[in-house]
Amino acid sequence: MAKVANLPRNETGISAALGILKQKFGEKLQTGQSVREQHAHTTTWIPNQPADAVVYPQSTEEVAEIVKICAEHKVPVIGFGTGTSLEGHVNAPAGGICVDMSEMNQILAVHPEDLDCVVQPGVTREQLNTYLRDQGLFFPIDPGANASLGGMTATRASGTNAVRYGTMRDNVIALEVVTPQGEIIRTATRAKKTSAGYDMTRLYVGSEGTLGLVTEITLRLQGIPEAMSSARCSFETVDAACQAVMMTIQYGIPVARIELLDALAVQAVNGHSKLDLPETPLLLLEFHGSENSVAEQAELFGSIAEDVGGTGFEWTANAEERNKLWQARHDFYWASMALKPGCSAHATDACVPISRLADCVNAAVAKAQELGLFAPLVGHVGDGNFHISPIVDKDNPKERAAAEDFTRWLAETAISMGGTCTGEHGIGQGKQDYLRPELGGTVDLMKTIKRALDPDNIMNPGKIFRQD
Amino acid sequence: MAKVANLPRNETGISAALGILKQKFGEKLQTGQSVREQHAHTTTWIPNQPADAVVYPQSTEEVAEIVKICAEHKVPVIGFGTGTSLEGHVNAPAGGICVDMSEMNQILAVHPEDLDCVVQPGVTREQLNTYLRDQGLFFPIDPGANASLGGMTATRASGTNAVRYGTMRDNVIALEVVTPQGEIIRTATRAKKTSAGYDMTRLYVGSEGTLGLVTEITLRLQGIPEAMSSARCSFETVDAACQAVMMTIQYGIPVARIELLDALAVQAVNGHSKLDLPETPLLLLEFHGSENSVAEQAELFGSIAEDVGGTGFEWTANAEERNKLWQARHDFYWASMALKPGCSAHATDACVPISRLADCVNAAVAKAQELGLFAPLVGHVGDGNFHISPIVDKDNPKERAAAEDFTRWLAETAISMGGTCTGEHGIGQGKQDYLRPELGGTVDLMKTIKRALDPDNIMNPGKIFRQD
Repeated sequence: MAKVANLPRNETGISAALGILKQKFGEKLQTGQSVREQHAHTTTWIPNQPADAVVYPQSTEEVAEIVKICAEHKVPVIGFGTGTSLEGHVNAPAGGICVDMSEMNQILAVHPEDLDCVVQPGVTREQLNTYLRDQGLFFPIDPGANASLGGMTATRASGTNAVRYGTMRDNVIALEVVTPQGEIIRTATRAKKTSAGYDMTRLYVGSEGTLGLVTEITLRLQGIPEAMSSARCSFETVDAACQAVMMTIQYGIPVARIELLDALAVQAVNGHSKLDLPETPLLLLEFHGSENSVAEQAELFGSIAEDVGGTGFEWTANAEERNKLWQARHDFYWASMALKPGCSAHATDACVPISRLADCVNAAVAKAQELGLFAPLVGHVGDGNFHISPIVDKDNPKERAAAEDFTRWLAETAISMGGTCTGEHGIGQGKQDYLRPELGGTVDLMKTIKRALDPDNIMNPGKIFRQD
Repeated sequence: MAKVANLPRNETGISAALGILKQKFGEKLQTGQSVREQHAHTTTWIPNQPADAVVYPQSTEEVAEIVKICAEHKVPVIGFGTGTSLEGHVNAPAGGICVDMSEMNQILAVHPEDLDCVVQPGVTREQLNTYLRDQGLFFPIDPGANASLGGMTATRASGTNAVRYGTMRDNVIALEVVTPQGEIIRTATRAKKTSAGYDMTRLYVGSEGTLGLVTEITLRLQGIPEAMSSARCSFETVDAACQAVMMTIQYGIPVARIELLDALAVQAVNGHSKLDLPETPLLLLEFHGSENSVAEQAELFGSIAEDVGGTGFEWTANAEERNKLWQARHDFYWASMALKPGCSAHATDACVPISRLADCVNAAVAKAQELGLFAPLVGHVGDGNFHISPIVDKDNPKERAAAEDFTRWLAETAISMGGTCTGEHGIGQGKQDYLRPELGGTVDLMKTIKRALDPDNIMNPGKIFRQD
């Protein structure tokens, strides 16, 4: 499990910074216990470690001011978007100031000709897509939650559309960042590509707030496709489903989504969404393109699926039917918890080369059974990424220990198959033990960069790197 | 023009390292003047600054050994692929050891199921594609030259296919790197996506050999499409052509290539390749997909082009006709020089948001005329990137000064339009003056990282950053 020991607190610095910040920000700085705890809440079991105060800046200049004050007094700064991260990213193990970006939620510019936009970090992905719809544009990255774009940038988020449109890594064009010294920089221009120096944009995407705070994001957009179609197909085994995924990708079918649900996950979704899908491994797909091409793609997939024994293949371009199917997929998280009332889901995030996906999924399902865990599985399988989530009674020490054993085993197994312990959630506090097994000496280079850019370790301390 | 002053030489260190390297590498270390000069040759006017020796390692371990010896004696290390970079990247302004990767040219693994491969840095893109063809796979990035994949990684190269398949930034999955201390690290696993720590892969892609030497590259591959079609269309003005490009991209047509040639470039290509294209702005396109979809894409583009006054629209799926057209485009460099025998082309590399492309291209053509320069233009216009190349008699000081004025003006103009001075060539020595105007304080962060990872500044010193 996560190392979540408290870190040494700089009491003098914290109280000095708090005093100055209170004067400058008045009501925009809050120190009540419930607000502080709420801002350290995570959707896993990682214990709550609240900051000393939560501040709500309204501009980049205010963020820079906050960071300068904290830098002067060597006080931790923790960025906060919507608090939907899964690995303890918003905890404050050494105390400090939580910077809540919810009031920096302006869409600053949309450039339809360039297919890009500029947003503040508190804008959520749903807010952005609602705003864009009338212009025939959309932003494709869709983690489960309605996360903020700042948080999605910080964790290098992705979701179901990544197989076609990439992750936050691929869809951030440029960033405005407040550095650990409180300086305001801009990592790149709006050009679609560049070879001008080090790729500082990509360094900040996924840096989990440990190198600075993102205050503006330039994002790549997509035109809403002329047509969309969805398909589903059931398989006897996970192997057969994975085989269909591999052939689909190799064949070059530009699937927009290709999601796997195992038998347990289908059962959960059937119950929750009143569907009657066969309770065997299921692939859900979506295709984007012209009317002809989405039909052609769906049919091509259908014949691939049939070749590997898929059954019940159906596709539709009807919006209502499509939405019903995808809503069921999106509700999986709640559906799975409904199967064991009073329990909570424990997220995992293995991602392996697609040739190892069936092996990894099968091994994970068998391991969960061996440990007596009830653990439905869904996956963004076009990327080799899947989430198998033990649903566990947190107050049952035996179940809890089994779930902890399982998550450790899965991270190690994914790494041993040439994959990663985290495809899209990030390291935070929860996955620190696996970073070095996965990346070896590269971790020392990361730490060298962290020390060079943030010598006083004020930006989100205790995240990504083990403290020992 | 480039700052290419020689930098201080560490004579003692260089002769000590040379002595040790000679003993270890024997005939694999060469110090003859012509070999050294050849390894500092660039395709621009940047003066030749040879290294003190050229060494030909055959393994990662040998590269690590070379770097360790150089690190101990604080001697510069300059990586070398095929020497086709355009901004003086392979010069040795402080002397040192040139590490020629040409004998590290093995394709180590191809994983068709995962659509990736692992290569040594001396493998060239044509070598890789020849090797992959039988497996129905290809690697899409195609800078003009038959560059090495190590060099392409170092400069974050792209080319005509980037509008669909991205640049080296998007197509490198992981790297093995020898650090400035001679340690061997691996930046990532083979997973298609990851959120595990800082994106060290992207930090090394485009770092121009200043943070270490790349010794192994894991690359993303594509399936060879079932069908390809090509199209061409002429326009009265560059504005109309750019309008067609913007609409094509906004419409979501997944063009694989969309290249602009201005009237002068068409004239050059007509002369060299015995074609009779109308000598007005021309768009050349390629579409990849199923037979139906490449036909549909071509026809859709045709109707867009017609809407903005395009004429002479033709498309074909015939391989011979397609190749003839694209060969003509690829021969543009030689074709343009044939128009002014004895002269050489001076590369530029502006890249702007696509909404500013017509403005930037028109201004560039007008400026070249004003300066009396003969400067044909081609562009990867789907990305907003174009190359307008004054063809100049290097021994004519007036022409030369005009070309230098022009390249400076163009870099500044691209930056003023929200673009970059280099879309795909890199900074090297030639574009150092524009890095700070383009990126401001971000350059200080880059320098902090450089100092932290390479405190003795032995990796390709004098590149990317101005020395003042």
